[in-house]
Amino acid sequence: MKARWINLARVAAVITAVTSWVVPGHAQDPLPSWADAAPKKAIMAFVDRVTKQDSSEFVPTAERIATFDNDGTLWAEQPIYFQLAFALDRVKVLAPLHPEWKDKEPFASLLRGDLKGALAGGEPIIGQLVMVTHAGMTTHEFEKIVSDWIANAKHPTTGRLYTEMVYQPMLELLAYLRANGFKTFMASGGGVDFMRVFSERVYGIPPEQVIGSSGKLSFEVRDGKPVLVKLPELNFVDDKTGKPIGIHILIGRRPIFAFGNSDGDLQMLQWTAAGSGARFVGVVHHTDAEHEWAYDRASHIGKLDKALDEATAEGWTVVSMKDNWKRIFPLEGK
Amino acid sequence: MKARWINLARVAAVITAVTSWVVPGHAQDPLPSWADAAPKKAIMAFVDRVTKQDSSEFVPTAERIATFDNDGTLWAEQPIYFQLAFALDRVKVLAPLHPEWKDKEPFASLLRGDLKGALAGGEPIIGQLVMVTHAGMTTHEFEKIVSDWIANAKHPTTGRLYTEMVYQPMLELLAYLRANGFKTFMASGGGVDFMRVFSERVYGIPPEQVIGSSGKLSFEVRDGKPVLVKLPELNFVDDKTGKPIGIHILIGRRPIFAFGNSDGDLQMLQWTAAGSGARFVGVVHHTDAEHEWAYDRASHIGKLDKALDEATAEGWTVVSMKDNWKRIFPLEGK
Repeated sequence: MKARWINLARVAAVITAVTSWVVPGHAQDPLPSWADAAPKKAIMAFVDRVTKQDSSEFVPTAERIATFDNDGTLWAEQPIYFQLAFALDRVKVLAPLHPEWKDKEPFASLLRGDLKGALAGGEPIIGQLVMVTHAGMTTHEFEKIVSDWIANAKHPTTGRLYTEMVYQPMLELLAYLRANGFKTFMASGGGVDFMRVFSERVYGIPPEQVIGSSGKLSFEVRDGKPVLVKLPELNFVDDKTGKPIGIHILIGRRPIFAFGNSDGDLQMLQWTAAGSGARFVGVVHHTDAEHEWAYDRASHIGKLDKALDEATAEGWTVVSMKDNWKRIFPLEGK
Repeated sequence: MKARWINLARVAAVITAVTSWVVPGHAQDPLPSWADAAPKKAIMAFVDRVTKQDSSEFVPTAERIATFDNDGTLWAEQPIYFQLAFALDRVKVLAPLHPEWKDKEPFASLLRGDLKGALAGGEPIIGQLVMVTHAGMTTHEFEKIVSDWIANAKHPTTGRLYTEMVYQPMLELLAYLRANGFKTFMASGGGVDFMRVFSERVYGIPPEQVIGSSGKLSFEVRDGKPVLVKLPELNFVDDKTGKPIGIHILIGRRPIFAFGNSDGDLQMLQWTAAGSGARFVGVVHHTDAEHEWAYDRASHIGKLDKALDEATAEGWTVVSMKDNWKRIFPLEGK
């Protein structure tokens, strides 16, 4: 199956190679899509400090743990979280099996095409939609459904595959950290079973390094074969205080490097910053309305308010997508 | 701190080197403590089948996931689970702070030295003892307590450190698998915060590859610093059906190699065996009463009954400690 995909990690590598070749003086630039500004300098200075053997802040390879939020940090999250787009598409597919949805909200509004009306109830409605569409099948069946969707579904405004709406500078950053002995993890509010379908292919992050929200599972034997069945019940929400908790339970070490983009990442960033020794804490600020979206304090998705204040107060690295990134997505220039 | 320890992985390496040197014809033997019998042959044949590039059953490195139970599989578990010994020692340390325990079971019996009476209530009592001794502090404080205990506490019958009661053949097997591109994980009913204190030093398994039982955590800010507080409430029990579920949630891939020793491992073994392609499923059978303990179907600890029947029926590899291991513990010959 892998051969069918555009390998974005490879595209990123080619872009890096080409850029290195045509821009004199940047032959060794591991972050070609990053403008020569403070965030890039801070990242590279940090990596130098923790990897140079003679540095007073040297960190052994085993402790070089880096965690990244996904929605809004590694890929886009507008106009709705991509996993919610998946859930909405699933509602349409499943509707013939649920005639009762015609008279039941939020399904009725959704099936009439009234997305705004359907989602007016906010988080609980989203939770309900996710439960209905992410449970009642085996983990294997779900993986197949997500695989098919992610290979074909198109983003409503760009018309691109969702996996093409990942941030080129972050692909370079992930590769750069790994080349410097870091283990890169996702720590996302997204569903772990959803993200793992593409995390390795798209980000180079293997399934065992993906932390996310999850539903409860039951172990059953069907036709003599054991299966894991996804139940319509929450197991863990990997958001806000759930992020450091998820990181502790799954990794068992405190990251020395973390990147987020919203208030949902604040506790992960605080947890990372509070460790002893050198720390890097980064915040992606969505400022490029022309090539992506611009939003922060007032946004209903990826709200960045308290975390922006704390980033300023604590001297964390805030990345302006408009000013600090030369390219947003892998397949097009800025 | 590491310098204070006997590095068992290093001891294992030295034993391997010495054995290789003195035994002609075994210069390349990666499993010198394994008798030249069926289990050793099955392990090495399996590793060959999945790692040889031209093998029809070749498995890419990323998918070489191996999971090991801990109690009774990687280290001993008699006369009581070692983590329970830790909990009992903690009850004694904490008793002065809890005068009410003098009249409250199971504490009263325990403090009188009547272990059998204290534990007569079985699993619920053990759960209660673990909750009382594993909660109410930060994860950092707990780590320090376990570190101190594991560095000093002695096994009641052998007088050895608990970390010296690991199985030499399994240390060799872990190293052999890693040398062949496998990622080795623990999947144990033991507490994840407990096991991570020594998993890397003793087994070469880093914290992020330890799956275990866990309590709930709360994220709090104390004196301006974020901490994770261990709550007296179960989060996840990594035993029986919990093992494949924990493996799915934390690894997200099905192991191709798994080892257990009791009915608590059965579902993990079934889950491993049921995948497509080459599989190795192993069961440690405690048969060496002289050098360790001999127990199976009737044991209250590490009961091996259904899993032994299924191993026989399915042709899984059953390892007799008495017959198939030439050495049990790293620091003494058999």
